Amino acid sequence: MIRYTKGHGTQNDFVILPDPEGALALEPAWVAALCDRRAGLGADGVLRVVATAKMPGYEGDASLAPWFMDYHNGDGSIAEMCGNGVRVFARYLADQGLAEPGSFGVATRGGIKTVRVPADGGDVTVDMGVPVWPHGAARIAWNGLEAQSVHVDMGNPHAVVFVDDVAQAGPLTAAPTWEPVAVYPRGVNVEFVAPLGPQHIAMRVYERGVGETRSCGTGACAAMIAAARRDGSRPGTPYTVDVPGGRLSIVEREDGCVEMTGPAVLVADGELRDFAVARG
Amino acid sequence: MIRYTKGHGTQNDFVILPDPEGALALEPAWVAALCDRRAGLGADGVLRVVATAKMPGYEGDASLAPWFMDYHNGDGSIAEMCGNGVRVFARYLADQGLAEPGSFGVATRGGIKTVRVPADGGDVTVDMGVPVWPHGAARIAWNGLEAQSVHVDMGNPHAVVFVDDVAQAGPLTAAPTWEPVAVYPRGVNVEFVAPLGPQHIAMRVYERGVGETRSCGTGACAAMIAAARRDGSRPGTPYTVDVPGGRLSIVEREDGCVEMTGPAVLVADGELRDFAVARG
Repeated sequence: MIRYTKGHGTQNDFVILPDPEGALALEPAWVAALCDRRAGLGADGVLRVVATAKMPGYEGDASLAPWFMDYHNGDGSIAEMCGNGVRVFARYLADQGLAEPGSFGVATRGGIKTVRVPADGGDVTVDMGVPVWPHGAARIAWNGLEAQSVHVDMGNPHAVVFVDDVAQAGPLTAAPTWEPVAVYPRGVNVEFVAPLGPQHIAMRVYERGVGETRSCGTGACAAMIAAARRDGSRPGTPYTVDVPGGRLSIVEREDGCVEMTGPAVLVADGELRDFAVARG
Repeated sequence: MIRYTKGHGTQNDFVILPDPEGALALEPAWVAALCDRRAGLGADGVLRVVATAKMPGYEGDASLAPWFMDYHNGDGSIAEMCGNGVRVFARYLADQGLAEPGSFGVATRGGIKTVRVPADGGDVTVDMGVPVWPHGAARIAWNGLEAQSVHVDMGNPHAVVFVDDVAQAGPLTAAPTWEPVAVYPRGVNVEFVAPLGPQHIAMRVYERGVGETRSCGTGACAAMIAAARRDGSRPGTPYTVDVPGGRLSIVEREDGCVEMTGPAVLVADGELRDFAVARG
């Protein structure tokens, strides 16, 4: 019997699978069937909750972050990190009594992420690390439009495009292209960012390999950093980033790390039945 | 605490809510939030399981069909019937010991539907009633293509269009149109049907008000009837209908009723948490 919890952060949604002993073999086809939105339970990805000490190959000190977030994309592939996922994961740990509310570390393939979960159920904060702000630029083309992008690397590459209104970007049904192509050899996530007010921006994102999504944690951080640089804002200035799936609050700390705060909602709990991996 | 089961029939998926006493008030906004595929649990619709005797306004003899399928679309609106839903509903009744495997009646807003659930977990059969085969025709236009449609009414209107290959219909991202418009005053479901072999067809469907879906029970029956009429098949001749979400077996009985047989899969069980209806 496999237990699960379903949850989301700004409508980036996950199936959480508690597996303290690391007993579940998450075959890619099984993960994809589980995440299928009609034949399975449906989600953007799976967050397996494994005791860090039981995670094969983990080389850090498990006592610093007793729980490992084993993140799998909805297509069955593995990703290092997911900014919205780690908030939901942290909420789950506190909800289940596996971590005390307050600050604690979550082990991920992208290193230990420090989170802060308030005891009152409020928004969860995650330290997203130090952005890399490379030189150079690219010309992004989408929907017959073109604009210069700003590079921001949050562990994954982002091309931030400023527009007057995010609706202007039009339906993002096809991947944007860029020139020169060598700038993003492994593809890029493209954020369309528009001003809504002082330290307040709207963002839409086209995630590489996925398409337009309702939220992207690293994308929101990249958008905030690009906006803060353009505004000449000092570290410590909080920004509000509205994404289609909700609202995030992001600040660049004095030490250079980006902190993202946003909702983490647990929707339902339950038990999976056996279900076929083969899909018609 | 609200319990639920998630299930699907040919990838038309449902949240089943057991509510024998009829105590749950399914507000449209709550149903829509529950069926939201990222902020909620996600489904095409809700099947509330209510004791027929407790269903306000039910005028039939509750002893003929002790359980009422209170079907709600994913947008919160109410519909009379759902052919894939009634299979999943019947499976759930048998699974929970609320009905004996074999033949039994399910009460719906569209009358009592007779179902047959094998004890071994195999495909479920539902009597979809007598099709109406009106005269007249319409010219359907979609994706820059045009073809004559065949009318079939299964309690809801269907326009069946024969094509050589269902892939030919192209991406069904916009609703087909028809001439003369007066033929379908309240809209129509359009089925694109192609031959795959003797008594074997493929179907894609554009459901009115919804878009392309992976399956439509009444649409599959309409497609089968149109194909059987074209083939000059006798009643009792079984047809196989492949839809994007799986395979259905459909036969027109000697008494004129259409019987549809197909999978009904229960995927998971659980309990809902409180979740906000307001969506960002």
